[in-house]
Amino acid sequence: MDLTTIKDPSFLKDLSIEELELLSADIRDFLINVTSRTGGHIGPNLGVVELTVALHKVFNSPNDKFIWDVGHQSYVHKILTGRTSQFETLKKHKGLSGFPKRNESEHDVWETGHSSTSLSAAMGMAIARDLKGTGEYILPIIGDGALTGGMALEALNHIGHEKTDMIVILNDNEMSIAPNVGALHNILGKLRTAGKYQWAKDELEYILKKIPAVGGKLAAAAERIKDSMKYLLVTGVFFEELGYTYLGPVDGHNYEDLMENLLYAKKTKGPVLVHVITKKGKGYHPAESDRIGTWHGPGPYKIESGDFIKPVSAPPAWSKVISETVRRIARDDQRVVAITPAMTVGSKLEGFGEEFPDRLFDVGIAEQHAVTMAAGLATQGMKPYLAIYSTFLQRGYDQVVHDVCRQNLNVFFGIDRAGLVGADGETHQGVFDVAFMRHIPNLVLMMPKDENEGQHMVYTALQYDAGPIALRYPRGNGLGVKMDEDLLEIPIGSWEVLREGTDIAILTFGTTIPMALEAAQILSEEGISARVVNARFIKPFDEAMMISILEQDIPVLTIEEAILQGGFGSAVLEYAHDLGFHQSKIDRIGIPDQFIEHGSVNELLDEIDFTVEATVAKAKQITKMKQQRV
Amino acid sequence: MDLTTIKDPSFLKDLSIEELELLSADIRDFLINVTSRTGGHIGPNLGVVELTVALHKVFNSPNDKFIWDVGHQSYVHKILTGRTSQFETLKKHKGLSGFPKRNESEHDVWETGHSSTSLSAAMGMAIARDLKGTGEYILPIIGDGALTGGMALEALNHIGHEKTDMIVILNDNEMSIAPNVGALHNILGKLRTAGKYQWAKDELEYILKKIPAVGGKLAAAAERIKDSMKYLLVTGVFFEELGYTYLGPVDGHNYEDLMENLLYAKKTKGPVLVHVITKKGKGYHPAESDRIGTWHGPGPYKIESGDFIKPVSAPPAWSKVISETVRRIARDDQRVVAITPAMTVGSKLEGFGEEFPDRLFDVGIAEQHAVTMAAGLATQGMKPYLAIYSTFLQRGYDQVVHDVCRQNLNVFFGIDRAGLVGADGETHQGVFDVAFMRHIPNLVLMMPKDENEGQHMVYTALQYDAGPIALRYPRGNGLGVKMDEDLLEIPIGSWEVLREGTDIAILTFGTTIPMALEAAQILSEEGISARVVNARFIKPFDEAMMISILEQDIPVLTIEEAILQGGFGSAVLEYAHDLGFHQSKIDRIGIPDQFIEHGSVNELLDEIDFTVEATVAKAKQITKMKQQRV
Repeated sequence: MDLTTIKDPSFLKDLSIEELELLSADIRDFLINVTSRTGGHIGPNLGVVELTVALHKVFNSPNDKFIWDVGHQSYVHKILTGRTSQFETLKKHKGLSGFPKRNESEHDVWETGHSSTSLSAAMGMAIARDLKGTGEYILPIIGDGALTGGMALEALNHIGHEKTDMIVILNDNEMSIAPNVGALHNILGKLRTAGKYQWAKDELEYILKKIPAVGGKLAAAAERIKDSMKYLLVTGVFFEELGYTYLGPVDGHNYEDLMENLLYAKKTKGPVLVHVITKKGKGYHPAESDRIGTWHGPGPYKIESGDFIKPVSAPPAWSKVISETVRRIARDDQRVVAITPAMTVGSKLEGFGEEFPDRLFDVGIAEQHAVTMAAGLATQGMKPYLAIYSTFLQRGYDQVVHDVCRQNLNVFFGIDRAGLVGADGETHQGVFDVAFMRHIPNLVLMMPKDENEGQHMVYTALQYDAGPIALRYPRGNGLGVKMDEDLLEIPIGSWEVLREGTDIAILTFGTTIPMALEAAQILSEEGISARVVNARFIKPFDEAMMISILEQDIPVLTIEEAILQGGFGSAVLEYAHDLGFHQSKIDRIGIPDQFIEHGSVNELLDEIDFTVEATVAKAKQITKMKQQRV
Repeated sequence: MDLTTIKDPSFLKDLSIEELELLSADIRDFLINVTSRTGGHIGPNLGVVELTVALHKVFNSPNDKFIWDVGHQSYVHKILTGRTSQFETLKKHKGLSGFPKRNESEHDVWETGHSSTSLSAAMGMAIARDLKGTGEYILPIIGDGALTGGMALEALNHIGHEKTDMIVILNDNEMSIAPNVGALHNILGKLRTAGKYQWAKDELEYILKKIPAVGGKLAAAAERIKDSMKYLLVTGVFFEELGYTYLGPVDGHNYEDLMENLLYAKKTKGPVLVHVITKKGKGYHPAESDRIGTWHGPGPYKIESGDFIKPVSAPPAWSKVISETVRRIARDDQRVVAITPAMTVGSKLEGFGEEFPDRLFDVGIAEQHAVTMAAGLATQGMKPYLAIYSTFLQRGYDQVVHDVCRQNLNVFFGIDRAGLVGADGETHQGVFDVAFMRHIPNLVLMMPKDENEGQHMVYTALQYDAGPIALRYPRGNGLGVKMDEDLLEIPIGSWEVLREGTDIAILTFGTTIPMALEAAQILSEEGISARVVNARFIKPFDEAMMISILEQDIPVLTIEEAILQGGFGSAVLEYAHDLGFHQSKIDRIGIPDQFIEHGSVNELLDEIDFTVEATVAKAKQITKMKQQRV
């Protein structure tokens, strides 16, 4: 059918199983076709075609509430709720988001991007429903990977205890982004291969009810036998113990099986867990046979061959440079171990893992545990390297403060995807880390100007033994600079003058250095001599250099691809005023006090006036002020 | 015995059970005696006397590693490791910490204060052990309450999967600080009343091994029968499913039982969970019969009567004022619900819960879930009030950013224990919240000058419907001011001049206002006219008032009982420079860039030069600079 004619999911009510299957094929064709051009989370979405259709057929969105955990598997839901024609703009600036968005549709009742939030959100919605007496169905749809996140487990525990009416859809694709980790994974594995549970249990209870009631010990024994038989028949025991009615395993690509179980769940009181087995990439061979997660959320690709359309001869990815340098150092330093929360591929740690299989720890989606486990390792004299995306490190903020920095332990954080990330949008922008880390005592925070300095910073961090140290680096590829053969230690707190100048000092770090240099060039052509400083240590400062700038009364412009409130520029202001330089002309460029949506990084920067032109204008303004005063 | 003669735990090796029991009695007498004068976590410590002694008898600390979760139950451990004579200084400035401290003893291998970190730390230590091949025992000791924290569940899952050698001691006292919550609690309840497990399982396996091996279906059936029999005999299945050998339940006050199980655990490979049942307050009747947690960590008390020694006629506690105002408003506004992460008593929500049992949600130690559940409630038009200690809100940072503020939902955060808390020390000081919340878009952050303004702010927050709003308030009691009968709405972003003045403007909020007023009085006596502003909205600013101060070029001194980096004073600097007031004399007083240890709040403030005298001196300095320039 023509998917663009779909306005809402009500048409599904009249479709037969055969018609649903035809629809599924059309949806798959459309998804493959569009994401081959736009890129996107094709693997996860191909896996939930039948599940999403069945949910919309059996339940009534938006009255019944679908809460998509993580949210990148909501494309089919977007098609069924009238957004097909917007897919050409998927993840583009002002275009369709790759995640649920409340302002896109009334069917999107919850926004996500980070994992493991759906059960807590669902519990809040269920409590509201029960207080208001509205009676709708609440359906969080959570993957097996997301289920290992601590907050999902907290919620699972709470919901089971409260016996809240809720239908938890466990979308078990045997692999989240990386192969799954954790004992829960083993439990799910056993369940997958076990037979159907509910029917057998019902039958057993029917038989047992026919046994006449007997008093005392015999009754207790009968009860135990019943319990025991339950286990003989099934292994849904783990979820049953937690207070859930377990339904499954359900074939997530079979409409009969899906509908039968969803209808059964609909009649069941209390929390129900429907264990649905799906296959990531279902229906598209290259994605279906993916074992390591390259088809999780790729860029554009060729449909026929499944080849990714890559930019020709790009410089190495930042994460590759950083992880490979850690690997290189680990060859000589037995203390170095690497930790990743389910991001081995994203953080390019495969090479490290191949060479040191005993020293790479993928802990699953479990950022809090990852941080504190690193602290535990450090207490024993190890040198743990934790590779973690900036936005996901937010999950470990308390552990960074309480476990790592307070104990002043030698943990090395590699903060990946720092700064704007672009297409993944506001849930994934790595713009808060400077502000949420700078105020933590004992922590060193740095960012390199290019990948060569990046490798030296890795070396510096692994030599440093006076406490925690963090290296933030951006998404994407390096600048393609020449890499030094020998690794060098960079003095902690040392900045570097990249261009001399006397009228203004531009202090910046990382990705914004090229912009600063370009602005300095333009300024020089207009007769303003701009110094550009690579302020590679965000904390601590290069005090000598900073004081010298302040003493010379040179106006300062700070630039940071990070939120301005409490950021690096703010640190410069604090420093100047603390030292009594109350008349310093200091101005700041950075991310303003708002969430930044999706789009290309350049489009986003333009939109917030984070440009060479704005830099030049600000610099002129502040140097003019100086000239006026003099 | 004279406990002060204990230098290390080695003497325990030679003691008989009878001697251990005598020792336990001596320890209990000592603990009750000393905490009746110093205050402290008497309930939890009386509960772990035998457990701690048995651990030190069976294992060899510090080579074997005891990791005390939360840490407030480490008093007996401190006695056995030679710190008895320091107990008179318990929780006092420069005295013995109420938590494990690595600089106090080599037996304290891990520092805590926040809950649920022990398993992750233990996993880090175990990995280090296995890489180094040192073979020591790693023993996290975790309470049933702490086990519901998400990071503990993340670690439980990871350890079970990796089959790491570790002995997890589950100290199940059936009650953490508040009565326990969650399905896990129900599981533990069943286990407590079940019979012994391990022995029966061993016997069963012995019998099954005698059955001759048979091929095909029969073998599979035998295997299933074996599995089933296991469940017939026990309910340790939950932990067994997660990959642990379950031992228990063990009577935590019976040395034979404890030692037998610890010795068995010692011989067992892979992760073992020893389920020890203890009684909080064991051996001291008032504490033992406590059902609501008042004996968890009380101040001084009379031993005979169990009466707490309270200051006479203190003003109402801050948390009482805030929670009771929420309760009052909830009478007319059905949308108001209250959420607490296991702190009903601490946050004084008992009254709310009595009046609205269906609208108070204690989610257990699960801060992340609490924040996102509140967000879920807000999506449905409810007005959730989340009462949470400042230091514990650190656990929910990502959820505040990603789930609440990014979706701009009407969640009302009551941030309890903001600022220095004193005796509980560096893990509990609420000094980071301004810095970690101020940079989050959409959030309103405020702090009242007294409890009357506090009640109006509660009203303001619950009227506000433009997004998230947070009210921080300190530990302890209010000022005893007169309370208005009617609740008033305070305009968002409005400050208040408390004292007029023209030479300097002191901007401050909350607890530091009296200090500012006192300093202003002294300054006026010296001819300096100081304005004092109640900057009750930390974000957003009172722009009109701020601009007026800047335009008049009045020097500004900010004071905040919060970390200086990225704090309120930093916001004032940003604001002034963003508006082009580059010559403003702005100086700041606050918590410096370090962790603040335990002691009375006044001692701690003195130590960091956060005093009336320092305020006067800074004010003079900055006004003098102005006079010089004029």
